[in-house]
Amino acid sequence: MMRIVLISALLAGAPVTQALAHEPPSALAAQTAETAPTLFALADWQSAAEAGDRYPLFTAERQRLEAEVRRAMAAGPNVPVPRDLGGGPTHEQHKANYKLIAGAGALYRLTGDRAYADFARDLLLAYAELYPTLGRHPVGRSSVKGRLFWQALNDSVWLVYASQGYDAIRDSLSDADRQRIDDDVFRRMARFFVEDNAAYFDRIHNHAAWAAAGVGMTGYVLRDDRLVEQALRGSRSDGSAGFLRQIDELFSPDGYYAEGPYYQRYALAPFIIFARAVQANDPERGIFDYRQGVLLKAVESVIQASYGGKIIPINDSIPEKGIDSEEIVTGVAVAFGQTSDPRLLSIVRTQGRTLLTPDGLAIARGLAEGRAQPFDFRSMSLSDGPNGDRGALALIRAGGADGQLLVMKNTQQGQGHGHFDRLNWLFYDRGAAVVTDYGAARFLNIEAKDGGGYLDENESWAMSTIAHNTLAVDGQSQFGGDWEHAEQFAMTQEAFDLSPGFQVARGRTGDAYPGVEMTRTLALVEHPELSAPLVIDVLRADGDRPRLYDLPLHFAGHIITQGFAARHAPEGRPVLGDRAGYQHLWVDAQSEAGEEPRSLTWLQNDRFYTYRFAASAPTRALLVESGANDPSFNLRREQALIRRMDGQADAVFYGVLEPHGAYDSRAETVEGSTSRIRSLTHVEGDDAVAVIVELVSGSRIIMAAADNAGPAATHSLNVAGEILTWTGPHARFDRPETAR
Amino acid sequence: MMRIVLISALLAGAPVTQALAHEPPSALAAQTAETAPTLFALADWQSAAEAGDRYPLFTAERQRLEAEVRRAMAAGPNVPVPRDLGGGPTHEQHKANYKLIAGAGALYRLTGDRAYADFARDLLLAYAELYPTLGRHPVGRSSVKGRLFWQALNDSVWLVYASQGYDAIRDSLSDADRQRIDDDVFRRMARFFVEDNAAYFDRIHNHAAWAAAGVGMTGYVLRDDRLVEQALRGSRSDGSAGFLRQIDELFSPDGYYAEGPYYQRYALAPFIIFARAVQANDPERGIFDYRQGVLLKAVESVIQASYGGKIIPINDSIPEKGIDSEEIVTGVAVAFGQTSDPRLLSIVRTQGRTLLTPDGLAIARGLAEGRAQPFDFRSMSLSDGPNGDRGALALIRAGGADGQLLVMKNTQQGQGHGHFDRLNWLFYDRGAAVVTDYGAARFLNIEAKDGGGYLDENESWAMSTIAHNTLAVDGQSQFGGDWEHAEQFAMTQEAFDLSPGFQVARGRTGDAYPGVEMTRTLALVEHPELSAPLVIDVLRADGDRPRLYDLPLHFAGHIITQGFAARHAPEGRPVLGDRAGYQHLWVDAQSEAGEEPRSLTWLQNDRFYTYRFAASAPTRALLVESGANDPSFNLRREQALIRRMDGQADAVFYGVLEPHGAYDSRAETVEGSTSRIRSLTHVEGDDAVAVIVELVSGSRIIMAAADNAGPAATHSLNVAGEILTWTGPHARFDRPETAR
Repeated sequence: MMRIVLISALLAGAPVTQALAHEPPSALAAQTAETAPTLFALADWQSAAEAGDRYPLFTAERQRLEAEVRRAMAAGPNVPVPRDLGGGPTHEQHKANYKLIAGAGALYRLTGDRAYADFARDLLLAYAELYPTLGRHPVGRSSVKGRLFWQALNDSVWLVYASQGYDAIRDSLSDADRQRIDDDVFRRMARFFVEDNAAYFDRIHNHAAWAAAGVGMTGYVLRDDRLVEQALRGSRSDGSAGFLRQIDELFSPDGYYAEGPYYQRYALAPFIIFARAVQANDPERGIFDYRQGVLLKAVESVIQASYGGKIIPINDSIPEKGIDSEEIVTGVAVAFGQTSDPRLLSIVRTQGRTLLTPDGLAIARGLAEGRAQPFDFRSMSLSDGPNGDRGALALIRAGGADGQLLVMKNTQQGQGHGHFDRLNWLFYDRGAAVVTDYGAARFLNIEAKDGGGYLDENESWAMSTIAHNTLAVDGQSQFGGDWEHAEQFAMTQEAFDLSPGFQVARGRTGDAYPGVEMTRTLALVEHPELSAPLVIDVLRADGDRPRLYDLPLHFAGHIITQGFAARHAPEGRPVLGDRAGYQHLWVDAQSEAGEEPRSLTWLQNDRFYTYRFAASAPTRALLVESGANDPSFNLRREQALIRRMDGQADAVFYGVLEPHGAYDSRAETVEGSTSRIRSLTHVEGDDAVAVIVELVSGSRIIMAAADNAGPAATHSLNVAGEILTWTGPHARFDRPETAR
Repeated sequence: MMRIVLISALLAGAPVTQALAHEPPSALAAQTAETAPTLFALADWQSAAEAGDRYPLFTAERQRLEAEVRRAMAAGPNVPVPRDLGGGPTHEQHKANYKLIAGAGALYRLTGDRAYADFARDLLLAYAELYPTLGRHPVGRSSVKGRLFWQALNDSVWLVYASQGYDAIRDSLSDADRQRIDDDVFRRMARFFVEDNAAYFDRIHNHAAWAAAGVGMTGYVLRDDRLVEQALRGSRSDGSAGFLRQIDELFSPDGYYAEGPYYQRYALAPFIIFARAVQANDPERGIFDYRQGVLLKAVESVIQASYGGKIIPINDSIPEKGIDSEEIVTGVAVAFGQTSDPRLLSIVRTQGRTLLTPDGLAIARGLAEGRAQPFDFRSMSLSDGPNGDRGALALIRAGGADGQLLVMKNTQQGQGHGHFDRLNWLFYDRGAAVVTDYGAARFLNIEAKDGGGYLDENESWAMSTIAHNTLAVDGQSQFGGDWEHAEQFAMTQEAFDLSPGFQVARGRTGDAYPGVEMTRTLALVEHPELSAPLVIDVLRADGDRPRLYDLPLHFAGHIITQGFAARHAPEGRPVLGDRAGYQHLWVDAQSEAGEEPRSLTWLQNDRFYTYRFAASAPTRALLVESGANDPSFNLRREQALIRRMDGQADAVFYGVLEPHGAYDSRAETVEGSTSRIRSLTHVEGDDAVAVIVELVSGSRIIMAAADNAGPAATHSLNVAGEILTWTGPHARFDRPETAR
């Protein structure tokens, strides 16, 4: 291990030899001290200090942080005995403290003002006083409690941030203070993880990634090679666990993180921050090239898996969480430091923030110099699993960042934060969510809501299959709602095809419900007569015996036209069921079982959406809303359409979603409020089915989907007297009006 | 009547005598032609043309309009036979056409390009062809159908805008075309109002104001003094009706419009546009000084009655409607043209738009020259009624535009668009609505929702008393839900007091429910220990016999803590009642009757709100939501707390709303999630009551409210052993902790 540590006197103004100033940092190892900054090179800190107020974004960050730290300095250090769950006062104070330590350290490096270093020192000395007296957190309910926080995770985060601040000021300390903080804060906290909680530390999980990062950064700061090695290769230093193994196991070759984009955002921070430290101290490891640069791909893919600045809320996730979150600000800054990729600068413009570090300086400078390029949001399939063979997240786009995004969830379970939603889909248009995912039932950090943790309704509702836009069978969730069982089964994305104007994803699972083989083809289809692309959906279930099939469509917007007859319950609002999420649904309307095509039109974000649906056998249509059996008001109330087919073994569900028209509430004008589709019909053949969408002109769009996805198999279907023939899993045929 | 009409050759580049160019427009009357622009002086159009691209906002407007008009020119005139309700294609086309005529006229004046004049001419000639063939609109359901539109109102609006475009191009026409358009479009349409529908034309109502404006502007354009006179003084020209009478009757001395701010916005346009024309043609009338400048006060007051850019949604109103609406853009531009008030420029900045007229040019120039001043949103009471003696709308603010706004509705009924909500209140904080009003049940211009008009649920829900934050008695709406009956009764605002840190409004009505005298005192109260002001509420009802009292609080946000025990209905969701709006409420929770103080905390826009409430007798607390008995999904689903007291003749309801804390979802931090209030108690005396708010420090804020509002009466109350004495309707006493 080679350390980049420069003579600390550099910042204090002592003369530096020319050789020193011009040598690249790595060549200076021989002249290092044991106390100078190591997470960022002193020379980089000095460049940042010298930049002064030249780059507005960096100046703004510095001023913001100065105001914050100055306020805390005026109040004096506050290091309380831990007492609360997430969101409570002592929890928030310890969170504030690690930010203050990191911030004061950075400000010391940037301004040379010792008052900042002294404040960080005083805080750390208070921790040196407190920490050795602490046992397990008094009110933690997490399986692994922390000492400062109710879950060990937050203790890890404390270590990741506080170690950065400590690194920045360590050379300003007296030997006694340094020894005290080394021993009674950092070494003890590292020991808490690698010794007292080695099993936790050695997990392959984002919590353990934070722990590895905290321990590894402590190792670099304390010049403790053993800690660095344990961070990288596990508590036994044998490579069976630790940071490298976590990179191997948690990311797919495309940089997709097993728990999904929301946790990818969260997990990104320790991976990126620690990798930055590894790169600075052990450049020969080539950590950013590791696995073909998977960590930088992870930054790219979490941005691609966002829409309108918000992260796609599949699996446990808070729908408000955006790419302006602190973790992605960090990820983008560090990635830009490595790649100088100008597309990242336009993401920073959305974020409006950067880090107060040498990486952040590079960002601010790039922006000030006008180097930003648009970020190319585009269709892509993100493979899942360490080898990329456990399914994929399909992202299909048209029209760029604010155009259409069709998401198909063909990923594996995603561990304990995964939802039972294989073959689920989402749709976004013109900046807004249209076909939605509830996300997690959680009020992050709001103490009154169960300490800010996951609520009971997360399992009883948010994870359930019926809470998603995929088929629920016999009133149960996929895999019986048992995520550990579900973890054993991969998913199969059978096709991903980006033909112009006809982009298709197809998934299959026979595991989610034993005895039922489910295949779904989802396509984003453009047509010259339509102002926006359609989504065409064919979901096929082949069951071993008659089943109850429920296919929900959760949508955002206000219902404009219910295009089918249904009974409404005027006396009260019945509840749909008593388990598997059904107990949280109120029924507003229920149709008779019928075979006629039906439709539902709603208005969302000043555009109309008409969903047309049909099936291979008589089906009821139910309009429902979430919120039943929720005495603590933990759920948001959101609507869904459920298509219910009972008593069939085999079923095919057809659907077409059409965005149309525009409502301008300011000018009070409306256009295109009526659908451009005249009819939706379907044909079932021996080994394939077809959806026929007839437009008002008489033009027809025909999408055929074969039962099996073999790329070389040839299929044919008789559609209105015409034999359509194609090879492969799907095909599109367009017929003008005159061809009828 | 003196007309400002300049030689039309001026624009075409013919030489102008120096005398002409320097004389003020009014001196040029002798040299006018009968065809030159009269609604704006030719010289003003010429200045605007000469300004070229000097002022960015004006350039942007011109370019926007050019693009729109050019697109329509490429497609050719489209003047269909009327067929549809609001939102339908022919409806939207005729709306588009009057904008195109006005726009093409303005562009002709600004660019001198005859193609614009010719396009406006072609459109108008098509109307000259169509209009004489039309009878009453085929599908109108309005009491007075139009010919072009389903309601005569829209025909009036057509006339107001098309007359402006015609005025701008009239001098470019052949005599034959001009005669044809004069006679077959404008004179016929004017006759439709003043002769065929004289009773409608002579109403005192915003629809008639549009008609008067359209007819009057037609009069100026056609040089028809009689039409102008009828517009100003009614179809019989006797002053019993018409524009001046409408100004007299519809606006209070403070510029408050009887139907409330939403219709004030709408009504503003004809008043302001026509007044601008009167000022240009008959300046000796001093129309903008009429009634101490009431029309300019109306522009000011509609802006004051907005929050976060949206108009306060009392009475029938669409909550999304903002001060960026076209009518207020017009009002602000015309007002600025008269006053050059620099505060209006900051409103234009919010609007981002202005008119493509000489007034709009002045706006754009003012902005470009940096003359904008902040608009001073401030506490004010807007008197209601022609003489200002029929009640008032109280607007109480703290913290400026984005601070707190407490609205108390002490106004009269407000005609057919009024709601049964005397003594209602609303509260806004940090840019968002917190205590809310449903507004109207209407999807403006969405044809599928009952033609875009008011839905049945407007009367059955939105107008009802239970849909507002005021007392419903015996399960009925105020005045039995009969607005014509309610019109007979004024309201009384008994106090409006803007003492620093203690701003109070007080209203009384004994008419809304015969036999029940209701008095309410609402105060916005600041205290050094609180980060935001409290709202303190005392509502007293003195009934002639035992009654059922229901006091709702409609709020926006997600419930965090239900601070009282209540039964929830797990099996389904019962409906609260069967009439007067109750049939639209589902009951989620219901407590037993109790006397203990209770609370409810919710999170809205990243801030917590705790509402504490108590009463003079045992009261139930119900949590309800709108949406029951709504088979067409016409209602939004919004929550309310209802406090229900049964079997008492006299009742006092106490409430305290406390904004507290902040939730930062990006940084994942929370502060102040717990209330700073320890308890809420109350004392009832012989002629007064008091609310005692005890803060966590032990400090107490005491608000006393006397039963009667006499300013000279002295009252006293024993509060915790201390005799408090004061004079007048209300008083505040602060007691520090040590005083206990």
